[in-house]
Amino acid sequence: MKQIEGGVTAAKGFEAAGVEAGVKYQNRKDMALIYSLSPCKVAGTFTTNVVKAAPVLWDQKIVENSAFAQAVVVNSGIANACTGIQGMDACRAEAEHAGKLLGIPADSVLIGSTGVIGMHMPVDRLTAGIDKLVAAKGSSLEDGLLAAQAIMTTDTVHKQLAVEFTVGGKTATMGAMCKGSGMIHPNMCTMLAYVTTDVAISKELLTKAVKAAVVDSFNMISVDGDTSTNDTLLVLANGEAGNEEIVTENEDYQAFSQALQFVTTELAKKMAGDGEGATALFEAKVIHAKSKTDARTLAKSVICSSLSKAAIFGHDCNFGRILCALGYSGAIFDPDKVELFFEGNGMRIQVFGNGAPCDYSEEEATKLLSAKEVTVVADMHEGTEEATAWGCDLSYDYVKINADYRS
Amino acid sequence: MKQIEGGVTAAKGFEAAGVEAGVKYQNRKDMALIYSLSPCKVAGTFTTNVVKAAPVLWDQKIVENSAFAQAVVVNSGIANACTGIQGMDACRAEAEHAGKLLGIPADSVLIGSTGVIGMHMPVDRLTAGIDKLVAAKGSSLEDGLLAAQAIMTTDTVHKQLAVEFTVGGKTATMGAMCKGSGMIHPNMCTMLAYVTTDVAISKELLTKAVKAAVVDSFNMISVDGDTSTNDTLLVLANGEAGNEEIVTENEDYQAFSQALQFVTTELAKKMAGDGEGATALFEAKVIHAKSKTDARTLAKSVICSSLSKAAIFGHDCNFGRILCALGYSGAIFDPDKVELFFEGNGMRIQVFGNGAPCDYSEEEATKLLSAKEVTVVADMHEGTEEATAWGCDLSYDYVKINADYRS
Repeated sequence: MKQIEGGVTAAKGFEAAGVEAGVKYQNRKDMALIYSLSPCKVAGTFTTNVVKAAPVLWDQKIVENSAFAQAVVVNSGIANACTGIQGMDACRAEAEHAGKLLGIPADSVLIGSTGVIGMHMPVDRLTAGIDKLVAAKGSSLEDGLLAAQAIMTTDTVHKQLAVEFTVGGKTATMGAMCKGSGMIHPNMCTMLAYVTTDVAISKELLTKAVKAAVVDSFNMISVDGDTSTNDTLLVLANGEAGNEEIVTENEDYQAFSQALQFVTTELAKKMAGDGEGATALFEAKVIHAKSKTDARTLAKSVICSSLSKAAIFGHDCNFGRILCALGYSGAIFDPDKVELFFEGNGMRIQVFGNGAPCDYSEEEATKLLSAKEVTVVADMHEGTEEATAWGCDLSYDYVKINADYRS
Repeated sequence: MKQIEGGVTAAKGFEAAGVEAGVKYQNRKDMALIYSLSPCKVAGTFTTNVVKAAPVLWDQKIVENSAFAQAVVVNSGIANACTGIQGMDACRAEAEHAGKLLGIPADSVLIGSTGVIGMHMPVDRLTAGIDKLVAAKGSSLEDGLLAAQAIMTTDTVHKQLAVEFTVGGKTATMGAMCKGSGMIHPNMCTMLAYVTTDVAISKELLTKAVKAAVVDSFNMISVDGDTSTNDTLLVLANGEAGNEEIVTENEDYQAFSQALQFVTTELAKKMAGDGEGATALFEAKVIHAKSKTDARTLAKSVICSSLSKAAIFGHDCNFGRILCALGYSGAIFDPDKVELFFEGNGMRIQVFGNGAPCDYSEEEATKLLSAKEVTVVADMHEGTEEATAWGCDLSYDYVKINADYRS
């Protein structure tokens, strides 16, 4: 497997577009289209929030019931959540309009929305946007990039990647894009993430691979602890790579799963590092935990701790807050066995061990903690399991962005 | 029951003091003493964090095993958490020194600490501080106030109150003080809270009343979701009111419990409203929930939501974030049945109902949300249970305070 240029148009047979539709804001791209020249197997995971946005309900039905999917229409600006029957009507209008223009059934058109909750959708502007998307769509890397840009909200950078790998002697490709910066605490998957691949794989195994991939990727990141109403991950596989369809958990399935794990983990890290107001990616690696569940719980507790996040923003080696967050995670351990290390800027410093603070240089620690990527390693000395979680620091800008997001 | 002036010295037979001991900072009161002229029944609840500060371990042992307690020595500045054997030695040294000066056993001296985690205690300064405390102690309201001031860290105001009530025909008094502003997400109790009363009550019933009181008071507040290593609530009852000892759950027990519930709830609200950087108290009231557990879970999820807190700071009627927080709380409900109201500045506005946004004036909503106390009411229309939780808004100052707390 190797990383290559591009995003959702990297795999064979996929087209994309990103256009300005004025859904909520003017003078910025805010609608995206992903289109496959042939029908795709589709799998997905969605928010566990009881309050689910209309497009989540729409997509869930397609993923569960439709034989195939062939297009995804996404808008930013308005989330189409808490919008009742009108919200579902908007999804249907979008899918029917896109289906008519593309010559595919409405129930093969997936919908995604991100933005303000509790605001109705301007259906006229959406269908006009779909006209532009269908007219503009293309298979170049640039077309994929425009789509990745169009789904951004408070994101400061677009997020996409692609990889190439071999299945059944054929070269296959997987491309992906996502957006996510605030209201990020996925529980199943994250804000909006779309993966396209030309691999031929059964729907059953595609679904299995997707469910496995999210556990240690999207489910291990958090920006602010708020699980969105719109979280969606969709993986579309059109089979254009020409490999024999993957129908058993053979080597090809392993190769596909490995690529998917890599792509989802990289997308997740991109989201965490671009958390609202973030100045650093904050990684927590828990090693030698009693169980895998403990390792995940402990790592995630650390990157969710507001106090630990604020300390990272201040480049302050306040390791007591890390220990505190491990302690209230719900996992049981012996605090006297824990060793804590910080890693960053090519340095590694032990700050805690044998139940007491270590003798380290505060000056060096501050230098380390000024890195763009800071890792805390917690060696629990309880077992053999490990897990990594990703978050970001908590800055003034997080408050600024969210105090007047709607205005 | 009526509220009266004062704090921990309001009840008969209690003395207190607050002095400068230079534990970590200079020129501020940082040590407090509560002393009862006669031995007290004591009950308490402590942090559920696996990482427990040394004074928590010390106090737990006394609450569980000692026949009585008679004094509490508290310092601010250093938390004596993550300090291993040296931390326990510091507690013992403090208790032995105070016990010797006060003429009481060391195992009747409770210890409390709050401040930076992972820093060793300056035992010499602590014992010198105890000398000053014992010399200064007195039973005036002013002495109680000095104690309440000495336990503050990032608190902007001291927190104390007292009530008078009748048990067995005798007038009894209950006084209290607490501190808490950051690292507040109690799960059993909160940072440091001390209640003194002259009621005569059996240890068993005192313990029962304390456990019942925290559920809807300290356990329903949050500032930042971080459950501290030091959370401690202690209730000392010395029997000086002269009532017949309460040994059954009779009317007297109800009167005592009611007073304790009032005092703990008021202390909890004081802490939430003085959350680090807070500009407003943020109250979430959930009504007509399916069960009491659901009501508590839903209310707490709202006041813990960073995005909802930031919106309150920005006076932004972003009610979608409230719905989102209800939705990911873990409680199951039908979003289409929910009605949301905001209350503040003497106004009440409905913002959501019938599964869709209501037609309200944004201008009026902003005026309402500029109140010093903002309440959101979520009517779930699922049952008959209700609960209230208290938090605060999320401001720039929260980040400022916590990015460089140690320096």
